[in-house]
Amino acid sequence: MKDEKGLLIVLSGPAGVGKGTVCNALRGVDTEIEYSVSATTRQPREGEANGVNYFFKTKQEFEQMIEENKLLEWAKYVDNYYGTPLDYVVETIEKGRDIILEIEVQGAKKVKERYPEGIFIFLMPPSLAELRSRIVGRGTENEDLINKRMTVAREELEMMENYDYVVENDEVDKAVDRIQAIVTAEHCKKDRLIEKYKQLAEVE
Amino acid sequence: MKDEKGLLIVLSGPAGVGKGTVCNALRGVDTEIEYSVSATTRQPREGEANGVNYFFKTKQEFEQMIEENKLLEWAKYVDNYYGTPLDYVVETIEKGRDIILEIEVQGAKKVKERYPEGIFIFLMPPSLAELRSRIVGRGTENEDLINKRMTVAREELEMMENYDYVVENDEVDKAVDRIQAIVTAEHCKKDRLIEKYKQLAEVE
Repeated sequence: MKDEKGLLIVLSGPAGVGKGTVCNALRGVDTEIEYSVSATTRQPREGEANGVNYFFKTKQEFEQMIEENKLLEWAKYVDNYYGTPLDYVVETIEKGRDIILEIEVQGAKKVKERYPEGIFIFLMPPSLAELRSRIVGRGTENEDLINKRMTVAREELEMMENYDYVVENDEVDKAVDRIQAIVTAEHCKKDRLIEKYKQLAEVE
Repeated sequence: MKDEKGLLIVLSGPAGVGKGTVCNALRGVDTEIEYSVSATTRQPREGEANGVNYFFKTKQEFEQMIEENKLLEWAKYVDNYYGTPLDYVVETIEKGRDIILEIEVQGAKKVKERYPEGIFIFLMPPSLAELRSRIVGRGTENEDLINKRMTVAREELEMMENYDYVVENDEVDKAVDRIQAIVTAEHCKKDRLIEKYKQLAEVE
Protein backbone atom coordinates (compact mmCIF):
# COMPACT_ATOMS: atom_id res chain seq x y z
CA MET A 1 0.00 0.00 0.00
CA LYS A 2 2.99 2.27 0.61
CA ASP A 3 3.44 2.95 -3.10
CA GLU A 4 -0.18 4.06 -3.31
CA LYS A 5 -0.75 7.80 -3.70
CA GLY A 6 -2.58 9.67 -0.96
CA LEU A 7 -6.00 11.16 -1.55
CA LEU A 8 -6.61 14.84 -2.19
CA ILE A 9 -9.83 15.58 -0.31
CA VAL A 10 -11.57 18.88 -0.93
CA LEU A 11 -14.09 20.01 1.67
CA SER A 12 -16.19 22.90 0.45
CA GLY A 13 -19.69 24.33 0.63
CA PRO A 14 -21.71 27.54 0.89
CA ALA A 15 -20.68 30.45 3.10
CA GLY A 16 -21.88 29.95 6.66
CA VAL A 17 -22.26 26.17 6.46
CA GLY A 18 -19.47 25.55 8.96
CA LYS A 19 -16.58 24.28 6.84
CA GLY A 20 -14.01 25.61 9.31
CA THR A 21 -15.78 24.17 12.35
CA VAL A 22 -16.13 20.73 10.77
CA CYS A 23 -12.54 20.75 9.52
CA ASN A 24 -11.22 21.73 12.96
CA ALA A 25 -13.29 18.99 14.61
CA LEU A 26 -11.95 16.47 12.08
CA ARG A 27 -8.43 17.66 12.84
CA GLY A 28 -9.07 16.97 16.51
CA VAL A 29 -9.97 13.31 15.97
CA ASP A 30 -8.20 12.24 12.78
CA THR A 31 -4.41 12.39 12.76
CA GLU A 32 -4.15 10.13 9.71
CA ILE A 33 -5.04 13.03 7.42
CA GLU A 34 -2.80 16.00 6.69
CA TYR A 35 -4.34 19.46 6.60
CA SER A 36 -3.45 21.99 3.92
CA VAL A 37 -2.52 25.48 5.16
CA SER A 38 -3.62 28.36 2.93
CA ALA A 39 -1.51 31.36 2.02
CA THR A 40 -2.94 34.85 2.40
CA THR A 41 -1.95 38.49 2.23
CA ARG A 42 -4.35 39.54 4.98
CA GLN A 43 -2.99 40.59 8.36
CA PRO A 44 -2.67 37.88 11.04
CA ARG A 45 -5.38 38.14 13.70
CA GLU A 46 -4.56 37.75 17.37
CA GLY A 47 -3.47 34.22 18.14
CA GLU A 48 -2.88 33.24 14.52
CA ALA A 49 0.54 31.78 13.78
CA ASN A 50 2.40 31.68 10.47
CA GLY A 51 2.41 28.18 9.00
CA VAL A 52 -0.36 27.02 11.35
CA ASN A 53 -3.45 29.07 10.51
CA TYR A 54 -2.07 30.58 7.33
CA PHE A 55 1.16 31.27 5.55
CA PHE A 56 1.21 35.06 5.79
CA LYS A 57 2.64 36.63 2.65
CA THR A 58 3.19 40.13 1.31
CA LYS A 59 1.26 41.12 -1.79
CA GLN A 60 4.48 40.94 -3.77
CA GLU A 61 5.32 37.44 -2.49
CA PHE A 62 1.81 36.20 -3.28
CA GLU A 63 1.83 37.63 -6.79
CA GLN A 64 5.17 35.94 -7.39
CA MET A 65 3.64 32.59 -6.28
CA ILE A 66 0.84 33.16 -8.80
CA GLU A 67 3.34 33.93 -11.54
CA GLU A 68 5.46 30.88 -10.76
CA ASN A 69 2.40 28.60 -10.75
CA LYS A 70 2.97 27.67 -7.13
CA LEU A 71 -0.70 27.77 -6.13
CA LEU A 72 -3.21 24.99 -6.67
CA GLU A 73 -5.92 27.64 -6.59
CA TRP A 74 -6.15 31.27 -5.51
CA ALA A 75 -8.69 34.07 -5.30
CA LYS A 76 -8.87 37.70 -4.25
CA TYR A 77 -11.46 38.81 -1.69
CA VAL A 78 -11.70 42.45 -0.63
CA ASP A 79 -8.14 43.41 -1.60
CA ASN A 80 -6.63 40.29 -0.03
CA TYR A 81 -5.31 37.19 -1.76
CA TYR A 82 -6.06 33.67 -0.53
CA GLY A 83 -4.66 30.49 -2.06
CA THR A 84 -3.49 26.90 -1.61
CA PRO A 85 0.28 26.35 -1.95
CA LEU A 86 0.86 23.53 -4.43
CA ASP A 87 4.13 22.08 -3.09
CA TYR A 88 2.85 20.80 0.25
CA VAL A 89 -0.20 19.19 -1.37
CA VAL A 90 1.91 17.39 -3.98
CA GLU A 91 4.56 16.24 -1.47
CA THR A 92 1.91 14.86 0.89
CA ILE A 93 0.07 12.90 -1.80
CA GLU A 94 3.32 11.50 -3.22
CA LYS A 95 4.24 10.26 0.27
CA GLY A 96 0.99 8.26 0.21
CA ARG A 97 -0.68 10.45 2.85
CA ASP A 98 -4.15 11.93 2.48
CA ILE A 99 -4.53 15.69 2.58
CA ILE A 100 -7.66 17.76 3.11
CA LEU A 101 -8.28 21.23 1.69
CA GLU A 102 -10.99 23.34 3.30
CA ILE A 103 -11.81 25.95 0.67
CA GLU A 104 -14.72 27.93 -0.70
CA VAL A 105 -16.63 26.73 -3.76
CA GLN A 106 -14.81 28.83 -6.36
CA GLY A 107 -11.50 27.46 -5.16
CA ALA A 108 -12.88 23.90 -5.18
CA LYS A 109 -13.96 24.37 -8.79
CA LYS A 110 -10.44 25.38 -9.77
CA VAL A 111 -8.96 22.37 -7.94
CA LYS A 112 -11.43 20.09 -9.74
CA GLU A 113 -10.25 21.41 -13.11
CA ARG A 114 -6.62 20.84 -12.19
CA TYR A 115 -6.97 17.61 -10.18
CA PRO A 116 -10.20 15.83 -11.17
CA GLU A 117 -9.15 12.62 -9.36
CA GLY A 118 -9.58 14.41 -6.03
CA ILE A 119 -12.44 13.52 -3.68
CA PHE A 120 -14.85 16.45 -3.65
CA ILE A 121 -17.09 16.74 -0.61
CA PHE A 122 -19.83 19.37 -0.45
CA LEU A 123 -20.85 20.35 3.07
CA MET A 124 -24.56 21.11 3.26
CA PRO A 125 -26.88 22.42 5.95
CA PRO A 126 -30.07 20.32 6.44
CA SER A 127 -31.99 22.91 4.45
CA LEU A 128 -31.62 26.38 3.07
CA ALA A 129 -33.91 27.56 5.85
CA GLU A 130 -31.41 26.22 8.32
CA LEU A 131 -28.63 27.98 6.43
CA ARG A 132 -30.62 31.18 6.72
CA SER A 133 -31.03 30.85 10.48
CA ARG A 134 -27.33 30.16 10.88
CA ILE A 135 -26.45 33.31 9.01
CA VAL A 136 -29.00 35.31 11.02
CA GLY A 137 -27.54 33.73 14.15
CA ARG A 138 -24.30 35.56 13.58
CA GLY A 139 -26.25 38.70 14.34
CA THR A 140 -24.04 40.98 12.31
CA GLU A 141 -25.82 41.10 8.95
CA ASN A 142 -28.89 43.02 7.86
CA GLU A 143 -31.85 41.60 5.90
CA ASP A 144 -30.55 42.73 2.50
CA LEU A 145 -27.25 41.02 3.04
CA ILE A 146 -29.01 37.86 4.19
CA ASN A 147 -31.18 37.79 1.07
CA LYS A 148 -28.12 38.33 -1.07
CA ARG A 149 -26.47 35.39 0.66
CA MET A 150 -29.52 33.19 0.05
CA THR A 151 -29.29 33.92 -3.66
CA VAL A 152 -25.63 32.99 -3.56
CA ALA A 153 -26.49 29.80 -1.67
CA ARG A 154 -28.95 28.79 -4.40
CA GLU A 155 -26.26 29.29 -6.99
CA GLU A 156 -23.89 27.24 -4.90
CA LEU A 157 -26.44 24.43 -4.73
CA GLU A 158 -26.07 24.18 -8.48
CA MET A 159 -22.40 23.59 -7.85
CA MET A 160 -23.17 20.35 -5.99
CA GLU A 161 -23.16 18.79 -9.44
CA ASN A 162 -19.37 18.96 -9.51
CA TYR A 163 -18.92 17.07 -6.24
CA ASP A 164 -18.62 13.37 -5.46
CA TYR A 165 -20.24 13.46 -2.03
CA VAL A 166 -22.65 15.63 -0.08
CA VAL A 167 -22.30 15.69 3.70
CA GLU A 168 -25.05 17.20 5.81
CA ASN A 169 -23.76 19.33 8.67
CA ASP A 170 -26.74 18.69 10.93
CA GLU A 171 -24.32 17.97 13.78
CA VAL A 172 -20.59 18.58 13.65
CA ASP A 173 -19.72 15.13 15.06
CA LYS A 174 -21.95 13.40 12.51
CA ALA A 175 -20.46 15.41 9.66
CA VAL A 176 -16.97 14.43 10.86
CA ASP A 177 -18.00 10.74 11.00
CA ARG A 178 -19.35 10.94 7.46
CA ILE A 179 -16.18 12.53 6.12
CA GLN A 180 -14.07 9.85 7.80
CA ALA A 181 -16.35 7.16 6.35
CA ILE A 182 -15.93 8.63 2.87
CA VAL A 183 -12.13 8.59 3.21
CA THR A 184 -12.19 4.96 4.45
CA ALA A 185 -14.55 3.89 1.65
CA GLU A 186 -12.45 5.63 -0.98
CA HIS A 187 -9.44 3.63 0.17
CA CYS A 188 -11.49 0.44 -0.27
CA LYS A 189 -12.43 1.23 -3.87
CA LYS A 190 -11.67 -1.72 -6.09
CA ASP A 191 -9.92 0.36 -8.71
CA ARG A 192 -7.39 1.55 -6.11
CA LEU A 193 -6.70 -1.96 -4.76
CA ILE A 194 -6.91 -4.41 -7.62
CA GLU A 195 -3.32 -4.00 -8.77
CA LYS A 196 -2.00 -4.73 -5.30
CA TYR A 197 -3.97 -7.95 -5.05
CA LYS A 198 -3.09 -9.06 -8.54
CA GLN A 199 0.56 -8.74 -7.55
CA LEU A 200 -0.02 -10.94 -4.51
CA ALA A 201 -1.65 -13.58 -6.69
CA GLU A 202 1.38 -13.61 -9.00
CA VAL A 203 3.90 -13.81 -6.17
CA GLU A 204 2.18 -16.75 -4.44
CA MET B 1 -34.85 10.89 2.62
CA LYS B 2 -37.78 8.58 3.33
CA ASP B 3 -38.64 8.28 -0.34
CA GLU B 4 -35.09 7.20 -1.08
CA LYS B 5 -34.60 3.52 -1.88
CA GLY B 6 -32.48 1.39 0.42
CA LEU B 7 -29.16 -0.01 -0.73
CA LEU B 8 -28.66 -3.61 -1.80
CA ILE B 9 -25.25 -4.52 -0.41
CA VAL B 10 -23.61 -7.72 -1.56
CA LEU B 11 -20.80 -9.10 0.59
CA SER B 12 -18.88 -11.84 -1.16
CA GLY B 13 -15.38 -13.25 -1.55
CA PRO B 14 -13.37 -16.46 -1.86
CA ALA B 15 -14.16 -19.59 0.15
CA GLY B 16 -12.56 -19.45 3.59
CA VAL B 17 -12.15 -15.68 3.73
CA GLY B 18 -14.62 -15.32 6.58
CA LYS B 19 -17.75 -13.86 4.97
CA GLY B 20 -20.02 -15.46 7.56
CA THR B 21 -17.90 -14.32 10.52
CA VAL B 22 -17.72 -10.74 9.26
CA CYS B 23 -21.42 -10.66 8.46
CA ASN B 24 -22.33 -11.99 11.91
CA ALA B 25 -20.06 -9.41 13.57
CA LEU B 26 -21.68 -6.66 11.48
CA ARG B 27 -25.09 -7.94 12.52
CA GLY B 28 -24.01 -7.62 16.14
CA VAL B 29 -23.15 -3.92 15.87
CA ASP B 30 -25.28 -2.54 13.04
CA THR B 31 -29.03 -2.72 13.46
CA GLU B 32 -29.66 -0.16 10.70
CA ILE B 33 -29.05 -2.80 8.05
CA GLU B 34 -31.39 -5.71 7.29
CA TYR B 35 -29.89 -9.12 6.66
CA SER B 36 -31.11 -11.36 3.88
CA VAL B 37 -31.92 -14.95 4.85
CA SER B 38 -31.09 -17.58 2.23
CA ALA B 39 -33.30 -20.49 1.27
CA THR B 40 -31.84 -23.98 1.13
CA THR B 41 -32.85 -27.59 0.71
CA ARG B 42 -30.15 -28.89 3.04
CA GLN B 43 -31.11 -30.27 6.44
CA PRO B 44 -31.08 -27.86 9.39
CA ARG B 45 -28.07 -28.35 11.68
CA GLU B 46 -28.47 -28.36 15.43
CA GLY B 47 -29.46 -24.94 16.68
CA GLU B 48 -30.47 -23.61 13.27
CA ALA B 49 -33.94 -22.13 13.09
CA ASN B 50 -36.17 -21.70 10.05
CA GLY B 51 -36.33 -18.07 8.95
CA VAL B 52 -33.31 -17.12 11.05
CA ASN B 53 -30.34 -19.04 9.65
CA TYR B 54 -32.11 -20.24 6.53
CA PHE B 55 -35.52 -20.77 5.09
CA PHE B 56 -35.57 -24.55 4.95
CA LYS B 57 -37.35 -25.82 1.86
CA THR B 58 -38.07 -29.16 0.26
CA LYS B 59 -36.51 -29.83 -3.14
CA GLN B 60 -39.95 -29.47 -4.68
CA GLU B 61 -40.62 -26.13 -2.98
CA PHE B 62 -37.23 -24.79 -4.06
CA GLU B 63 -37.68 -25.83 -7.67
CA GLN B 64 -41.05 -24.12 -7.66
CA MET B 65 -39.40 -20.91 -6.43
CA ILE B 66 -36.92 -21.18 -9.31
CA GLU B 67 -39.74 -21.70 -11.79
CA GLU B 68 -41.74 -18.76 -10.46
CA ASN B 69 -38.69 -16.47 -10.60
CA LYS B 70 -38.83 -15.91 -6.84
CA LEU B 71 -35.07 -16.09 -6.31
CA LEU B 72 -32.63 -13.24 -6.87
CA GLU B 73 -29.91 -15.88 -7.39
CA TRP B 74 -29.56 -19.58 -6.71
CA ALA B 75 -27.04 -22.39 -7.10
CA LYS B 76 -26.75 -26.12 -6.43
CA TYR B 77 -23.87 -27.44 -4.31
CA VAL B 78 -23.54 -31.19 -3.68
CA ASP B 79 -27.20 -32.06 -4.31
CA ASN B 80 -28.50 -29.13 -2.27
CA TYR B 81 -29.99 -25.89 -3.50
CA TYR B 82 -29.08 -22.49 -2.01
CA GLY B 83 -30.65 -19.19 -3.05
CA THR B 84 -31.75 -15.66 -2.11
CA PRO B 85 -35.52 -15.11 -1.93
CA LEU B 86 -36.37 -12.06 -4.02
CA ASP B 87 -39.44 -10.79 -2.14
CA TYR B 88 -37.78 -9.83 1.14
CA VAL B 89 -34.95 -8.05 -0.68
CA VAL B 90 -37.35 -6.01 -2.82
CA GLU B 91 -39.67 -5.14 0.10
CA THR B 92 -36.74 -3.98 2.25
CA ILE B 93 -35.24 -1.77 -0.43
CA GLU B 94 -38.62 -0.25 -1.28
CA LYS B 95 -39.12 0.63 2.39
CA GLY B 96 -35.89 2.64 2.15
CA ARG B 97 -33.93 0.22 4.32
CA ASP B 98 -30.53 -1.20 3.38
CA ILE B 99 -30.15 -4.95 3.05
CA ILE B 100 -27.01 -7.05 2.99
CA LEU B 101 -26.57 -10.36 1.17
CA GLU B 102 -23.70 -12.59 2.22
CA ILE B 103 -23.21 -14.92 -0.73
CA GLU B 104 -20.48 -16.71 -2.65
CA VAL B 105 -18.95 -15.22 -5.77
CA GLN B 106 -21.09 -17.07 -8.32
CA GLY B 107 -24.21 -15.83 -6.61
CA ALA B 108 -22.83 -12.29 -6.44
CA LYS B 109 -22.18 -12.39 -10.17
CA LYS B 110 -25.81 -13.31 -10.82
CA VAL B 111 -27.05 -10.50 -8.54
CA LYS B 112 -24.78 -8.04 -10.38
CA GLU B 113 -26.39 -9.03 -13.70
CA ARG B 114 -29.85 -8.56 -12.29
CA TYR B 115 -29.26 -5.56 -10.02
CA PRO B 116 -26.17 -3.66 -11.21
CA GLU B 117 -26.99 -0.66 -8.98
CA GLY B 118 -26.17 -2.79 -5.91
CA ILE B 119 -23.03 -2.12 -3.84
CA PHE B 120 -20.66 -5.02 -4.39
CA ILE B 121 -18.07 -5.61 -1.69
CA PHE B 122 -15.36 -8.21 -2.13
CA LEU B 123 -13.93 -9.54 1.12
CA MET B 124 -10.22 -10.32 0.80
CA PRO B 125 -7.59 -11.86 3.04
CA PRO B 126 -4.35 -9.79 3.35
CA SER B 127 -2.70 -12.13 0.89
CA LEU B 128 -3.27 -15.46 -0.81
CA ALA B 129 -0.68 -16.93 1.57
CA GLU B 130 -2.88 -15.84 4.43
CA LEU B 131 -5.85 -17.42 2.69
CA ARG B 132 -3.86 -20.63 2.42
CA SER B 133 -3.02 -20.69 6.12
CA ARG B 134 -6.64 -20.05 7.01
CA ILE B 135 -7.77 -22.99 4.93
CA VAL B 136 -5.00 -25.17 6.41
CA GLY B 137 -6.06 -23.93 9.85
CA ARG B 138 -9.35 -25.71 9.45
CA GLY B 139 -7.33 -28.91 9.66
CA THR B 140 -9.79 -31.01 7.71
CA GLU B 141 -8.41 -30.78 4.17
CA ASN B 142 -5.47 -32.55 2.55
CA GLU B 143 -2.76 -30.89 0.43
CA ASP B 144 -4.46 -31.67 -2.89
CA LEU B 145 -7.67 -30.08 -1.80
CA ILE B 146 -5.77 -27.02 -0.55
CA ASN B 147 -4.00 -26.61 -3.89
CA LYS B 148 -7.29 -26.96 -5.68
CA ARG B 149 -8.73 -24.24 -3.45
CA MET B 150 -5.79 -21.97 -4.21
CA THR B 151 -6.44 -22.31 -7.92
CA VAL B 152 -10.06 -21.44 -7.29
CA ALA B 153 -8.96 -18.44 -5.18
CA ARG B 154 -6.83 -17.13 -8.06
CA GLU B 155 -9.82 -17.39 -10.36
CA GLU B 156 -11.92 -15.59 -7.79
CA LEU B 157 -9.35 -12.78 -7.64
CA GLU B 158 -10.13 -12.16 -11.28
CA MET B 159 -13.69 -11.66 -10.15
CA MET B 160 -12.71 -8.61 -8.09
CA GLU B 161 -13.11 -6.71 -11.34
CA ASN B 162 -16.88 -6.90 -10.97
CA TYR B 163 -16.92 -5.35 -7.49
CA ASP B 164 -17.11 -1.77 -6.32
CA TYR B 165 -15.09 -2.18 -3.14
CA VAL B 166 -12.48 -4.53 -1.72
CA VAL B 167 -12.37 -4.97 2.05
CA GLU B 168 -9.40 -6.69 3.66
CA ASN B 169 -10.36 -9.08 6.42
CA ASP B 170 -7.13 -8.67 8.38
CA GLU B 171 -9.20 -8.25 11.55
CA VAL B 172 -12.93 -8.86 11.80
CA ASP B 173 -13.61 -5.57 13.64
CA LYS B 174 -11.68 -3.60 11.04
CA ALA B 175 -13.51 -5.31 8.20
CA VAL B 176 -16.83 -4.46 9.89
CA ASP B 177 -15.75 -0.80 10.28
CA ARG B 178 -14.83 -0.64 6.60
CA ILE B 179 -18.15 -2.10 5.49
CA GLN B 180 -20.04 0.39 7.67
CA ALA B 181 -17.92 3.22 6.25
CA ILE B 182 -18.78 2.10 2.71
CA VAL B 183 -22.50 2.10 3.51
CA THR B 184 -22.26 5.58 5.10
CA ALA B 185 -20.25 6.94 2.16
CA GLU B 186 -22.67 5.47 -0.38
CA HIS B 187 -25.51 7.32 1.33
CA CYS B 188 -23.50 10.55 0.95
CA LYS B 189 -23.00 10.13 -2.79
CA LYS B 190 -23.98 13.28 -4.59
CA ASP B 191 -26.06 11.46 -7.18
CA ARG B 192 -28.26 10.01 -4.41
CA LEU B 193 -28.78 13.35 -2.67
CA ILE B 194 -28.89 16.08 -5.26
CA GLU B 195 -32.59 15.76 -6.02
CA LYS B 196 -33.51 16.12 -2.35
CA TYR B 197 -31.49 19.31 -2.01
CA LYS B 198 -32.77 20.79 -5.23
CA GLN B 199 -36.29 20.35 -3.86
CA LEU B 200 -35.33 22.22 -0.69
CA ALA B 201 -33.95 25.08 -2.76
CA GLU B 202 -37.21 25.35 -4.69
CA VAL B 203 -39.39 25.29 -1.56
CA GLU B 204 -37.48 28.04 0.24
